[in-house]
Amino acid sequence: MKLLEERIKKDGKVLNGDVLKVDSFINHQLDVPFLCALGKEFKRLYEGTPVTKILTVEASGIAIACLTAQYFGVPVVFAKKSKSSNIGDDLYSAEVKSYTHGNVNRILISKDFLKVEDKILIIDDFLASGNALRGLIELCDQAGAAVQGCGVVIEKAYQNGGALIRQRCRVEALARISSMDERGVCFVESGS
Amino acid sequence: MKLLEERIKKDGKVLNGDVLKVDSFINHQLDVPFLCALGKEFKRLYEGTPVTKILTVEASGIAIACLTAQYFGVPVVFAKKSKSSNIGDDLYSAEVKSYTHGNVNRILISKDFLKVEDKILIIDDFLASGNALRGLIELCDQAGAAVQGCGVVIEKAYQNGGALIRQRCRVEALARISSMDERGVCFVESGS
Repeated sequence: MKLLEERIKKDGKVLNGDVLKVDSFINHQLDVPFLCALGKEFKRLYEGTPVTKILTVEASGIAIACLTAQYFGVPVVFAKKSKSSNIGDDLYSAEVKSYTHGNVNRILISKDFLKVEDKILIIDDFLASGNALRGLIELCDQAGAAVQGCGVVIEKAYQNGGALIRQRCRVEALARISSMDERGVCFVESGS
Repeated sequence: MKLLEERIKKDGKVLNGDVLKVDSFINHQLDVPFLCALGKEFKRLYEGTPVTKILTVEASGIAIACLTAQYFGVPVVFAKKSKSSNIGDDLYSAEVKSYTHGNVNRILISKDFLKVEDKILIIDDFLASGNALRGLIELCDQAGAAVQGCGVVIEKAYQNGGALIRQRCRVEALARISSMDERGVCFVESGS
């Protein structure tokens, strides 16, 4: 998606060779009108695919998931990373290694909100190693819900997560990074 | 707001006398079209008030903040509860005691995204003790940004947080609970 690639080139910052900082518009400050445009693009890409619910994981997936969900007219469920006092005990859970935080989280979702009849679109901000998406797919498998596909804003296409997840389901990435370093970011050419 | 009071009566669950579980539509599963209606109501209430940015705190504030921000046409910034590897070091921070999790968090925001010229509307899901709002106001004070007001979905009006925060700034709550127990929830009458 040209609009997103240009924005990443303009406002993204590459740290330590492999961390892409997009916190001025995607995951700390949120450019809401811009994220709405990304949400409409997910809707265009998945037009005709039945979706009953969008699934994401806290915290940075929530914004793009909600702003996308309004174009599908469906609810969002976000998996939680800690057990708060009011989530209840009847849960699905999966382990996810966090690339950014360098630790392992258990992600949790109440069984009330993921059902065998659900048709799930998974939305997240980043796809790199694929650990978060794999964890979310595992939650869907535990519930017997159908995974219709994944939509991610940015894919680090030089890591193997995308290839692994695509063996399982459709994945749409709005920007696919082929390489990056302190001098800048290069994208996989569209259509390739 | 009648629509919200009815939804709380229908789908909210009171646990242990003082925990209101609204996780089927507000903070685990998110009823996005419904939250959009709440966002429009915040816009109506703050019509004419200059707002350059909406501030909230992860994770449960992000959805309502983003869906509200689209009607204001402004970005959201969410304060983070942990220092991820890519947030940077130039931060404002404040301590917040979490009512739900029973611990103390330090909330953090990059100085890049809160400026002296900003006019801030703070949005969150709950107001009870007022600790989260107080922490967010403290971040604004550190930056010298103007707090134009707060908008919360649900206020536990029988706790003292609302009174404390209203000494400092305008607070709009879409539903104000006067009392609740396992038999149900009562609301402060509109206009009172």
